[in-house]
Amino acid sequence: MNKSKAIFYHAGCPVCVEAEQKVARALDPARFDLEIVHLGQDRGRVAEAEAKGVKSVPALILDNIPFHINFGAGIEALR
Amino acid sequence: MNKSKAIFYHAGCPVCVEAEQKVARALDPARFDLEIVHLGQDRGRVAEAEAKGVKSVPALILDNIPFHINFGAGIEALR
Repeated sequence: MNKSKAIFYHAGCPVCVEAEQKVARALDPARFDLEIVHLGQDRGRVAEAEAKGVKSVPALILDNIPFHINFGAGIEALR
Repeated sequence: MNKSKAIFYHAGCPVCVEAEQKVARALDPARFDLEIVHLGQDRGRVAEAEAKGVKSVPALILDNIPFHINFGAGIEALR
């Protein structure tokens, strides 16, 4: 079975860390290849995240759909 | 290994259904026992959800921490 790509965008904030540790790491590793992207350190990928519909972090992309998990920071604060 | 309990609270809204199908069902079944609770149909559990810190649906509880996923409806609309 081909794995789906999952992308977790965050900015290192406490809300982000909690969501990463609890939600992103809870994904089934048999079905998902998880990439963790720190937008605060990798600002070159903010535009990519916005293009995927990310409005705030932390956010998890599954099957190209953005899921915003709680609220750490607005994406506009990371540009 | 004992599995952790995961609870997904929703209200049947489109945002909820998408989050259930994509996020809740993406959890590792080897590590989590997932319970799906439709608060619109089971209003007796709204107080339980609020006690766990749920402010809106859809929401996923992992290790007793509430994660609000996108926004379908405020919990107060379900009382």
